[in-house]
Amino acid sequence: MGKNLTSRAEDYSKWYNELVVKADLAENSGVRGCMVIKPYGFAIWEKMQAALDKMFKETGHENAYFPLFIPKSYLSKEASHVEGFAKECAVVTHYRLKNAEDGSGIVVDEDAKLEEELIVRPTSETIIWDTYRKWIQSYRDLPLKLNQWANVVRWEMRTRLFLRTAEFLWQEGHTAHATEKEAIEEAELILKVYADFVEQFMGVPVIKGVKTESERFAGAVETYCIEALMQDGKALQAGTSHFLGQNFAKAFDVKYATKEGGQEHVWATSWGVSTRLMGALIMTHSDDNGLVLPPNLAPIQVVIVPIYKGEEQLDALREKINPLVTALREKNISVKFDDRDTHKPGFKFNEYELKGVPVRLAMGKRDLENGTVELARRDTLEKTSVALEEVVEKVEGLLTEIQENIYNKAKSFQQENITEVNSYDEFKQVLEEKGGFISAFWDGTKETEEKVKQDTKATIRCIPIGVKQENGACMVTGKPANYRVLFAKAY
Amino acid sequence: MGKNLTSRAEDYSKWYNELVVKADLAENSGVRGCMVIKPYGFAIWEKMQAALDKMFKETGHENAYFPLFIPKSYLSKEASHVEGFAKECAVVTHYRLKNAEDGSGIVVDEDAKLEEELIVRPTSETIIWDTYRKWIQSYRDLPLKLNQWANVVRWEMRTRLFLRTAEFLWQEGHTAHATEKEAIEEAELILKVYADFVEQFMGVPVIKGVKTESERFAGAVETYCIEALMQDGKALQAGTSHFLGQNFAKAFDVKYATKEGGQEHVWATSWGVSTRLMGALIMTHSDDNGLVLPPNLAPIQVVIVPIYKGEEQLDALREKINPLVTALREKNISVKFDDRDTHKPGFKFNEYELKGVPVRLAMGKRDLENGTVELARRDTLEKTSVALEEVVEKVEGLLTEIQENIYNKAKSFQQENITEVNSYDEFKQVLEEKGGFISAFWDGTKETEEKVKQDTKATIRCIPIGVKQENGACMVTGKPANYRVLFAKAY
Repeated sequence: MGKNLTSRAEDYSKWYNELVVKADLAENSGVRGCMVIKPYGFAIWEKMQAALDKMFKETGHENAYFPLFIPKSYLSKEASHVEGFAKECAVVTHYRLKNAEDGSGIVVDEDAKLEEELIVRPTSETIIWDTYRKWIQSYRDLPLKLNQWANVVRWEMRTRLFLRTAEFLWQEGHTAHATEKEAIEEAELILKVYADFVEQFMGVPVIKGVKTESERFAGAVETYCIEALMQDGKALQAGTSHFLGQNFAKAFDVKYATKEGGQEHVWATSWGVSTRLMGALIMTHSDDNGLVLPPNLAPIQVVIVPIYKGEEQLDALREKINPLVTALREKNISVKFDDRDTHKPGFKFNEYELKGVPVRLAMGKRDLENGTVELARRDTLEKTSVALEEVVEKVEGLLTEIQENIYNKAKSFQQENITEVNSYDEFKQVLEEKGGFISAFWDGTKETEEKVKQDTKATIRCIPIGVKQENGACMVTGKPANYRVLFAKAY
Repeated sequence: MGKNLTSRAEDYSKWYNELVVKADLAENSGVRGCMVIKPYGFAIWEKMQAALDKMFKETGHENAYFPLFIPKSYLSKEASHVEGFAKECAVVTHYRLKNAEDGSGIVVDEDAKLEEELIVRPTSETIIWDTYRKWIQSYRDLPLKLNQWANVVRWEMRTRLFLRTAEFLWQEGHTAHATEKEAIEEAELILKVYADFVEQFMGVPVIKGVKTESERFAGAVETYCIEALMQDGKALQAGTSHFLGQNFAKAFDVKYATKEGGQEHVWATSWGVSTRLMGALIMTHSDDNGLVLPPNLAPIQVVIVPIYKGEEQLDALREKINPLVTALREKNISVKFDDRDTHKPGFKFNEYELKGVPVRLAMGKRDLENGTVELARRDTLEKTSVALEEVVEKVEGLLTEIQENIYNKAKSFQQENITEVNSYDEFKQVLEEKGGFISAFWDGTKETEEKVKQDTKATIRCIPIGVKQENGACMVTGKPANYRVLFAKAY
């Protein structure tokens, strides 16, 4: 398997597009903007789902399922929400096809027009809050903390595999609370869950912050976010958690009887991460040889490749390798023993490098004689020879080490690419020459934010949580500014 | 919690509808025909998914994900397939909403009309086979054995929670093979997987068979099925596995290079089970007191209810119950200790009966003195007093016993309700008075099948696998018939 992968230096964007396809993660389908997630890519997503689902349940959330379709009138109930989604939604208008009368083929049956159009959910706040109205009467019904794993559709014009697709998979949490305080705590708890997941499982360091007003979710009072940094110096929003105030409760008339006998509107949060995380995973760690996967999410953690001539040698190798496979599996390590005779070892080495398998073991005639195994780690591409009886222990330690190493490497990169600037000229220069996050004073106005975006394509990624209060001057207008925010070009 | 559940004898259909809602499984949404699956219902579905997913993987299948939308032209490629689905599909025609110019609200933007309409998938053969064309070139690429967990939409006019909804959740397997023999073996293997799952996890006995031509899946050469029998004597198709021949490979031009250097069309199967299984689960075991859940799928296997007056007694009970909870969890038994002070024990007893929790433990002052626990099993409603130190062992055995008991009960019911008849009059009488499966000779023609359906509403559920070859006469026409088939009214 020749990789023929464009290098990152040559064309980062092309490198990414090629890698997603060549590593068998996903590909474009015949439906504009919709992707096919291939088995290897889906296996990674399943591991993400399993880890996140466990974290949600451990923090008191339950799963449920709400309809794919949202009546147009529901979407319209929260003004800023519909404003945010109306321009990019798939609309179902009919419920039947028929044979054309002129025999030209299958056409929409105009007699089967819906009275009210249905929108394929771009997100589910409206249908869920319409349901919550029936479920919530009293403080005893609160909090209500639900999540759903679902597909959603946003009609994006320019799409890229995983990063921006018309249909994508995600989870969306929707919670209802008696008090503002409790809802804010929930939004912040989920931000922590997201950050922990992304850092500990994906090995991707993130910055926690809140969005500016103009970058907020349509309908939110506050949007918390985690921002990651890709190797090309562009930021990627990896997850958002919204404090929705009483906006949806008011739009859908959801009130509860308080302990004291009053009637109050309910407080809400919503939060989501999507298959976009796959893009962050790929772009953070991978190199010119292909994917680099964190052991915690790798579908295959260890691959074993035999190097042999003839069935007899293979049998001799099998005698050593089979017990090794068993011993590794007993340690809950996922192992693939690739003894295909249709492909040469060199081809297999390339393939597993491209697919980011963290540890590769190879065993040949010489190893058999010496009682050794060749061990190669994907992150550093280092090779060592290990005594057969020490392999299991070595591999176990190495998986932990690789997980830590790729995180630390990404963390160093992130730290090196947060640059403080004090003038707009300096800002433009750093953005042009170095990229990354740029920390600068901002006067807090939409106008300045918009000007920077127009001038440079950089946006405010977030106001970092716990940002230091200072007396500064906005880098653009010179007006007083109380803290620095993080700008970057972003995916 | 008063149950106020209509009894089965009074109105079986009403009993079912009420039970689904009162047991917190699902409810109708504001979108016609689409349901909301509530957390308790979804927790059962998640357990089904987990068990099935494991079985699919153990038999060599991988998960993937294909687009929600199917271009109209794809659906049209396989003639009988489009014939089967065109009449009941949701059609996306536009991709944008806008503010009406007259200020009347949000309307479809006519400038954003799709060139080609998109169908919300009713099933995914067409989009998947369009993709397989790119993936399959050689015999080395075969077999390809994929599954996806997805939502699908079929615009049903009359809907019922779980049994028939416009949107439902399911899994759909789609496999590609080099030979006819291998594809048939796959379809039969999956039939066995389905039957094993439904019998061993759901505790629902099934009959394996094949469908008659007129009941076949649109595009299939052979449809294998498992048929279950509900307590009202109606059958329920619980799963289907289709041998598709080369129909889709021909429609989408999917050929592979054989070992010998030729070019052949690929052989296919597809197979699915859906949230409809929830309906089968509910209707097979439940009674006038509510749900009866098999321990293998119950989200809560054991509930513990303390009976006390005042905080002091509750503390004394907690001292005994907390270690019991720990001990049961160590055995991988899911336990809920319901120490809510907002509800009385009687209310809780009712609630857990309604929700079908297999084992209920109660402990009060007397039990505390005697070192005992009151144990109630949901399937038989029997109560016994058990010594505290024997509870864990007793519960463990009882969960197995309940699982077996509800299966055996359903199996006896099924066996008692398969009736052989030898004349059409007898057939009608049994159908009217007893219901269930009716085993009768059939001449093998569509016309006779249709006549029986028109006369009696009964359909041929299946030709059982391994049916005995006999010399018989069709009960309707008197023409020669070689075997008996199973008729029933069905969901």
